[in-house]
Amino acid sequence: MRDCGLESTVMATAGAPIVFGRRKESDRVPTILVYGHYDVQPVEPISAWTSDPFTPQIRDGRMFGRGTADNKGQHIAQLLAIKAVLESSGRLPVNVVMIVEGEEEIGSPHLEQWVDEHAHLLKADFAYTSDGAIHPSGRPVVLCGARGLLYLELTLRVAPVDRHSGSFGGVSRNAALELVQAVSSLWDRDGEVAVPGFHDAVAEPTDLEKAAVEALPLTSPIHTSEMVTSSSDWFRRLLLRPNMNISGLGSGWTGPSMKTIIPASATAKLDVRLVPNQDPYDIARLITERLRSTAPEVEVNVISGVKPSRTPLDSPIVDRVSQAVEFAWEQPPLLYPSLAGSVPDFVFTSNLAIPSVIVPYGNADQANHAPDENLVLDYFHKGARTFVAVLHAFAPYESART
Amino acid sequence: MRDCGLESTVMATAGAPIVFGRRKESDRVPTILVYGHYDVQPVEPISAWTSDPFTPQIRDGRMFGRGTADNKGQHIAQLLAIKAVLESSGRLPVNVVMIVEGEEEIGSPHLEQWVDEHAHLLKADFAYTSDGAIHPSGRPVVLCGARGLLYLELTLRVAPVDRHSGSFGGVSRNAALELVQAVSSLWDRDGEVAVPGFHDAVAEPTDLEKAAVEALPLTSPIHTSEMVTSSSDWFRRLLLRPNMNISGLGSGWTGPSMKTIIPASATAKLDVRLVPNQDPYDIARLITERLRSTAPEVEVNVISGVKPSRTPLDSPIVDRVSQAVEFAWEQPPLLYPSLAGSVPDFVFTSNLAIPSVIVPYGNADQANHAPDENLVLDYFHKGARTFVAVLHAFAPYESART
Repeated sequence: MRDCGLESTVMATAGAPIVFGRRKESDRVPTILVYGHYDVQPVEPISAWTSDPFTPQIRDGRMFGRGTADNKGQHIAQLLAIKAVLESSGRLPVNVVMIVEGEEEIGSPHLEQWVDEHAHLLKADFAYTSDGAIHPSGRPVVLCGARGLLYLELTLRVAPVDRHSGSFGGVSRNAALELVQAVSSLWDRDGEVAVPGFHDAVAEPTDLEKAAVEALPLTSPIHTSEMVTSSSDWFRRLLLRPNMNISGLGSGWTGPSMKTIIPASATAKLDVRLVPNQDPYDIARLITERLRSTAPEVEVNVISGVKPSRTPLDSPIVDRVSQAVEFAWEQPPLLYPSLAGSVPDFVFTSNLAIPSVIVPYGNADQANHAPDENLVLDYFHKGARTFVAVLHAFAPYESART
Repeated sequence: MRDCGLESTVMATAGAPIVFGRRKESDRVPTILVYGHYDVQPVEPISAWTSDPFTPQIRDGRMFGRGTADNKGQHIAQLLAIKAVLESSGRLPVNVVMIVEGEEEIGSPHLEQWVDEHAHLLKADFAYTSDGAIHPSGRPVVLCGARGLLYLELTLRVAPVDRHSGSFGGVSRNAALELVQAVSSLWDRDGEVAVPGFHDAVAEPTDLEKAAVEALPLTSPIHTSEMVTSSSDWFRRLLLRPNMNISGLGSGWTGPSMKTIIPASATAKLDVRLVPNQDPYDIARLITERLRSTAPEVEVNVISGVKPSRTPLDSPIVDRVSQAVEFAWEQPPLLYPSLAGSVPDFVFTSNLAIPSVIVPYGNADQANHAPDENLVLDYFHKGARTFVAVLHAFAPYESART
């Protein structure tokens, strides 16, 4: 940050520190809050990497290495854009505030509190994040939100130890069966969430959002036998609807052959994707109530709660950023009402109450979280050019804050 | 066996060999077929043993070591009884045929075929097995059958690899959810088996069997919070009713914290206890049909199928064995219509069509399958005296075969 013309300081949280930066040009120009993260996923299995994950290597027009795409490579494009503008103009057309956090990959557990405590440093007209991937076709994308995440760990213990089914089969309780019955009750037979109240807070998508998902070209990377929906409903379900998913199940003996036991305990992990205006903790309470109506003793532990976020598609910010993207990529971006996944975008749209856009610079085959993570250098360059255009797109813009 | 006066030979099977022994006294006296097994459970965790599992050690009136109770120690009581009678009388009052197999702990997968192929060597008036435990109160028991076992492994795969729930949550199938819904459909909300046809073949217990379970004293070793039944129904459910149990569940991420995946595959293990006249392979078919009505792609693999067995409680064999037990233990045995667990007793009652009784010599706290397995020496001596009495109980008995 300092090399690129920003003041910078490392600020402690209860977890990994946040790197904070800023460059103030004037009270009369807008302020952009740029978000990124410096933490990465583990590199295992390291033997599957073609080159060392922490020695960046350029091959075939891509830079390979852990974090090249997710997220340091994308974030560096913003810094180089700032540096380039300063080198050519001596100043920026806007003010910049920058947050680079170190816990994005574990659900940003300390970001919200830090943002609340430092809101006075974070006054901005909108937030801007580059993370994720452009469309597989090569078209750039602009995303106006993200689904939220609720991650629950369910545990049911009914006995101090596993029992021999040859001694107790038919008279003693089975934790696996009780948990399976409770978990199963969360969905109807069609696989739709059947938790009472689950959909109550779901905001009806706007006409613009519906039109936006209709316009998205489907290039499904999975076989139709894997799909639970028709192609025509793909993006509506993925971007505008909530979803609940069993991401883990464990109980008793899962090794080879057989072990005739009645499990004393069972666990399940649930991964819930939320849309506006669902609150993860409200949803956790509804799921817990439903589970306990079948299995009163089940323990429910919230592992992660990330609120959904949304910026209106007709926000002038979205329009200006889209124009900047079109200039840099020489084609108009696809407009997504939301990311299907979950990023802590809500701290901007809810806690700071400002618009927020996500403009990925990564290639669709970036292999983030996997071996041979990489960033296509052409997209990296387009990313830097994009942010140069974004910095300039707001020069004539009257800051809403002034 | 040779040291104790039997001819003996080791006979191959497709698995572990069977040790076969016999002593023929006369065509005019009955023949007892004695069954035991020489295989044992693994000793792990070995660090939890007080003394080496394969160096028998006597402490506090018990012999400690793997197999002391399950089953070599109990079986040696039979051999020493034969030896003692031969040393004192020079001959046995009956003929003896003996089978000691090496695969009981893995469900006796080759015993049935071997018995069918060697039925000409196994002509006997009844079968006699000492395995398991006497009543915790110290009273001896005579068991007239065993529940059968069906062990199934269910596998459902819906995708080539796990998917990221942030990219596919709501549009791609979830193996864990589909298997949970299918497995859950096998029981009703009260936890009773709801597979159509499951109970059709269940034979109505006889009045004697009902009276026998009514007479059994309950000394439940589990807390009431673990029980799915009232004490009054304990033995009826445990001995006269079938039961199905989830013994293992595995899918997706079960480690600490979270991994936001949609599992590509899921597995479950089902352990089913059967009563006369349920056939394990018929039941496997019914369960498969029920599962596939919900999850058509689920694969069902039969890991083990052991038929139930029953000898009528009013068989003269049961009466005479009970008298021998009473003589040796100086108290009348408790009469069980069945073992709750599963032993390959059906090869005698079904394949050879002879009565069969199980007369355990082990203590209730024998810790079989666990560290510090042990056999109370007083019960071991009573066991040897029991078999001496059994050998003599049939001297005046006219063999049904002659």
